Amino acid sequence: MHFASDNWAGAHEAIAENAVRRNQGFAAPYGKSDLDRTIETTFNDLFETEVDVFFFVTGTAANSLALTCANRPGGVVFCHSEAHIRVDECSAPEFFTGGAKLESIEGPLGRLTPDSLASAIAHVRGGGLNAGQPMAASVTQVTESGTLYTPEEVAAIAAVTHDAGISLHMDGARFANAIAAIGCTPAEMTWKSGIDMLTFGGTKNGCWCAEALVIFRRDLAAQVQYLRKRAGHTLSKSRFMAAQFEAYLHDDLWITLGRHANAMAADLAGVIGADDRHHLRLAWEPQANEVFAIGTAAAVEALIDAGVSLNRWQAPRAERHLVGDGEQMVRLVTSFATQTSDVADFAKALARL
Amino acid sequence: MHFASDNWAGAHEAIAENAVRRNQGFAAPYGKSDLDRTIETTFNDLFETEVDVFFFVTGTAANSLALTCANRPGGVVFCHSEAHIRVDECSAPEFFTGGAKLESIEGPLGRLTPDSLASAIAHVRGGGLNAGQPMAASVTQVTESGTLYTPEEVAAIAAVTHDAGISLHMDGARFANAIAAIGCTPAEMTWKSGIDMLTFGGTKNGCWCAEALVIFRRDLAAQVQYLRKRAGHTLSKSRFMAAQFEAYLHDDLWITLGRHANAMAADLAGVIGADDRHHLRLAWEPQANEVFAIGTAAAVEALIDAGVSLNRWQAPRAERHLVGDGEQMVRLVTSFATQTSDVADFAKALARL
Amino acid sequence: MHFASDNWAGAHEAIAENAVRRNQGFAAPYGKSDLDRTIETTFNDLFETEVDVFFFVTGTAANSLALTCANRPGGVVFCHSEAHIRVDECSAPEFFTGGAKLESIEGPLGRLTPDSLASAIAHVRGGGLNAGQPMAASVTQVTESGTLYTPEEVAAIAAVTHDAGISLHMDGARFANAIAAIGCTPAEMTWKSGIDMLTFGGTKNGCWCAEALVIFRRDLAAQVQYLRKRAGHTLSKSRFMAAQFEAYLHDDLWITLGRHANAMAADLAGVIGADDRHHLRLAWEPQANEVFAIGTAAAVEALIDAGVSLNRWQAPRAERHLVGDGEQMVRLVTSFATQTSDVADFAKALARL
Amino acid sequence: MHFASDNWAGAHEAIAENAVRRNQGFAAPYGKSDLDRTIETTFNDLFETEVDVFFFVTGTAANSLALTCANRPGGVVFCHSEAHIRVDECSAPEFFTGGAKLESIEGPLGRLTPDSLASAIAHVRGGGLNAGQPMAASVTQVTESGTLYTPEEVAAIAAVTHDAGISLHMDGARFANAIAAIGCTPAEMTWKSGIDMLTFGGTKNGCWCAEALVIFRRDLAAQVQYLRKRAGHTLSKSRFMAAQFEAYLHDDLWITLGRHANAMAADLAGVIGADDRHHLRLAWEPQANEVFAIGTAAAVEALIDAGVSLNRWQAPRAERHLVGDGEQMVRLVTSFATQTSDVADFAKALARL
Repeated sequence: MHFASDNWAGAHEAIAENAVRRNQGFAAPYGKSDLDRTIETTFNDLFETEVDVFFFVTGTAANSLALTCANRPGGVVFCHSEAHIRVDECSAPEFFTGGAKLESIEGPLGRLTPDSLASAIAHVRGGGLNAGQPMAASVTQVTESGTLYTPEEVAAIAAVTHDAGISLHMDGARFANAIAAIGCTPAEMTWKSGIDMLTFGGTKNGCWCAEALVIFRRDLAAQVQYLRKRAGHTLSKSRFMAAQFEAYLHDDLWITLGRHANAMAADLAGVIGADDRHHLRLAWEPQANEVFAIGTAAAVEALIDAGVSLNRWQAPRAERHLVGDGEQMVRLVTSFATQTSDVADFAKALARL
Repeated sequence: MHFASDNWAGAHEAIAENAVRRNQGFAAPYGKSDLDRTIETTFNDLFETEVDVFFFVTGTAANSLALTCANRPGGVVFCHSEAHIRVDECSAPEFFTGGAKLESIEGPLGRLTPDSLASAIAHVRGGGLNAGQPMAASVTQVTESGTLYTPEEVAAIAAVTHDAGISLHMDGARFANAIAAIGCTPAEMTWKSGIDMLTFGGTKNGCWCAEALVIFRRDLAAQVQYLRKRAGHTLSKSRFMAAQFEAYLHDDLWITLGRHANAMAADLAGVIGADDRHHLRLAWEPQANEVFAIGTAAAVEALIDAGVSLNRWQAPRAERHLVGDGEQMVRLVTSFATQTSDVADFAKALARL
Repeated sequence: MHFASDNWAGAHEAIAENAVRRNQGFAAPYGKSDLDRTIETTFNDLFETEVDVFFFVTGTAANSLALTCANRPGGVVFCHSEAHIRVDECSAPEFFTGGAKLESIEGPLGRLTPDSLASAIAHVRGGGLNAGQPMAASVTQVTESGTLYTPEEVAAIAAVTHDAGISLHMDGARFANAIAAIGCTPAEMTWKSGIDMLTFGGTKNGCWCAEALVIFRRDLAAQVQYLRKRAGHTLSKSRFMAAQFEAYLHDDLWITLGRHANAMAADLAGVIGADDRHHLRLAWEPQANEVFAIGTAAAVEALIDAGVSLNRWQAPRAERHLVGDGEQMVRLVTSFATQTSDVADFAKALARL
Repeated sequence: MHFASDNWAGAHEAIAENAVRRNQGFAAPYGKSDLDRTIETTFNDLFETEVDVFFFVTGTAANSLALTCANRPGGVVFCHSEAHIRVDECSAPEFFTGGAKLESIEGPLGRLTPDSLASAIAHVRGGGLNAGQPMAASVTQVTESGTLYTPEEVAAIAAVTHDAGISLHMDGARFANAIAAIGCTPAEMTWKSGIDMLTFGGTKNGCWCAEALVIFRRDLAAQVQYLRKRAGHTLSKSRFMAAQFEAYLHDDLWITLGRHANAMAADLAGVIGADDRHHLRLAWEPQANEVFAIGTAAAVEALIDAGVSLNRWQAPRAERHLVGDGEQMVRLVTSFATQTSDVADFAKALARL
């Protein structure tokens, strides 16, 4: 019963196979092979516009270099206080940008709002030179709380962002889950709603190590090849990266996998919601492939003992009031590799408490 | 009526004169003149222990390199949400440290507490590798809210800091005002209470541009000469810096000046406290040379029109509730150059509203 | 006839297969799976001592973070003027170290000598604070000119390095070729000869993207996990890296592959040496898997037209005199994937000129 | 007999006095005082065009931030192998630019030529992405060998620089000596000859600590206020800097002082040239305020014993052949503070050998 994270799964069979298949013979290195070029253009089709795309082996690298594209000295990036870029990347964004500040914005369920963003920007602007200068905002889609932004919500945030003369980044580590859940097109979710740079995640949804930084504004993309090389992130046998994306994008495999993970999470939430003995309750309704629940410490302990792999979760500031004394928030994540039987096993373990 | 900040004053006459006097003849550059060496040892006497001392022309530089001494990759510095290093130095600390994160701690009147610090450290530790690693804490003395830490309070914070295996920095941009107000020795306020690195400010208290980074642990000081040179902060005619400190420390001029500024602030607070028509009220009792007050927007406007130079102040989060609708918080700062007549003029302006 | 570089080949079949095999089921991410742990200990056996080992997807990343381990502010790294770290990594080492200087040392056939190194170190020391401080030396094994250092030569360089109080790094992008050519043990080539940090390359010799930073001094290794994470180089599905090394090291596959590549290069050199019409001549004797040759521009052009993939090579300063007017130096590289028939085809192409 | 360097002198009396005079009363900090604004416009007059000007306390800071204005990831700066920015600034330029590479160009008497520059740029371009990207060239005027570029020579270098799409910086630590020697206008020496950014030095020519970064292209200047603040180089009592420049520029004091220093150097060279016992000979003709001479080690020793303060000089690579066995090159520098009697004393000391 593996619900600790979606990166505990290996690579999807079709992706691994394609990597092996594309491994035959000789090919130009450093992104210059025919396959590299072909897959790059596939992204144009996917996003219905001409994009610049750069492959990375981690989301941390893609996110950090995305922000570096928008960099300004003394730059300030606005993001949710729980944003992965702020609390889970060991200061990589700060490092690559030469010390940009990632300014926390509080808000319920992991989401920025146009108002909270506008207020944070105004606060920095009020500080003058001392406070540095706004340079970007970043939203996570699916958020760190497993919730979603609608394209309309993204557009409203983008309006504030662009009014302030800064760029908007989307950390789409779970972009597939978001698209599968919302049903809009990738274009609608991104540039049509004002996103300037997207981290298009593959690793959490069936790739081995494949994230694409997709940039919708040519000026922001101009230096990425140098930034990536200088970061040691330009793989020589780059076709290995391209081959993963080839399979991932083929026949919408990525959406199929995201939809499956979401469905498993919905089932899991159903099991928890049906626990009428209340050992565990949903902290809030899941919208994609992450389920947040609250239970007594004893119940959580017992589930772990029963073989459930999950994460004890430090409740976000805005949701801390939901957790009672002696209670524990937990996060359960499903993936392309989660099976119906895993959920059934979990249900049994819960029933046995 | 100059109360905008203590850096609007020029240099104290004795300091300017000494700089000119020490300007005669030839001397070895880059900190190697006899005067440089002599003044460095003066700091040993001042702090009753052997210290390493490095001169800087700005507090931002001294603070940033202090933190760099304690640097670790993915390092996290803990400080108050209003700390100058976090919000007023254009990300210089983040820049010099290669991207350290300055983690905000909320708390009343600009102060950290042992509990709030311990909790913030624990939160980062709980995040594992992703969250980076604690590297230092920093307290500001006088705080950004014009309040003080007693040596006992510093010691309690130091205990938490050192238990966590990290270093404690004190931003003493207004160290003289603190010493003058509390009456303890510089040693008691710093290394005897657990401070590892001190930014000993001179600029705001009568120097032209003179801050001393004083380090109480030899291991932390080992690389500063290289850090300073690499930062472009090693003045060739370094005796100019030494000469400022020579005069500043001579016969406790620095404490005398700090005491004067504090007295002027107390007078100013008295004037405001005595305003029985309540155009302005004290936000809280000043403890050094900064007075925070709250008034109607109209009253503030009128005072400025009457020639009072002050700062409209964004109320700190923990004190936001003090400011009513239509009200404005302001900060008034006194300095060595403030005169009794300035306070009297202010009283008249206030009375005339 | 692919002789452009050893990174044009894909992954060796055994390595690709093992990556797929290890891809089954769930495993802890971020280097915490059983496989990660197991393979790390395999390196202890390989080097006959306890080492710290960290996996990277590029040599640039491994080299850069190796040097960062030895970092000092204003630090100077000594390396050959042709060193990959100096001229082929887009300033990644400079970036990750916060601006270390890579000081060029000239010398024949890509090699440092104890004397040239000692002289360069002395020159920097003579410059005092202004010149910064020595921090490391780096040798490339196989060198950028396809030549080798014997363990005795490494030891002599290490003696100079350590006398200067700095660390010695070996860029072993082609370490397998070196070991195969020299026949000593990995331990003899590295820590027994004074190497402190090794970039143990896998990518150029049959891996997809696998380089191991092997550190022989615990103190230098202390911060690497943070440095790697902050660089965006900590893969979540890290077992993919471990699986490559598992196969690479199994039954000395790495040495077998290196030996094969070397043999192919020797054959190729034999073909060129036997060209009694002198369209092409050996620039110097190859010692591993790279052949440097000189020919008329016309001959080089004709070979390329005949389908030979090779690199026109800018002759190193020390070897520039070997290249006559109208001549061109070229580099031909063999790999695990080069076949006898490739060499035979090359021989035919050469004969047909 | 102080000839060690021009930074052994204090500040010129008129400059010190003006700093004291401008020290009266209150003034807005951080470059916003009336005096700051006035002096900034004085630079427009001086250069006969609208410039952006930023004050710094060291040349290292001004040079480093000048290069940062032209920064590109993986950027390469081209300069002479003896350039101060390359060998005497403890890697500050590399640090501030996030790791730019300062590529050495060899050449006689400290000078770049259009050909040597073009060849170095071509070499880097030939290396592709791996080699990074050219970003700037930098010339030193007066050069590190005490020689000069004519405006025509600068223009020829600028043509190569701009053809390559990069910017041209002039390190004018001794700009006054150059202008005094050549007799052209500051405009002719700089933007009219293609200079994009100038470090206009004051410290070595009579200021306490005053360097102006003068930028002739608005686009390059856009971020300097943030870069300077983030570097801790924005002085709060900035009028202290402005006051130095006010006096320095008043009535062409700066040129007068430079002319005096040059005249003293010419006298000194005359003394050495007249030494018919050949204890010391001129290494080459001085062109400004630095005299390079060669003597026996014994003669140099004896001069030092006689009270002559000078620098033993490591001969530049291109001039190493001038120094015989047992000989030593020395550098003697004159300044605004050098007096005729100093030269006479030196002549006596030399005669007494």
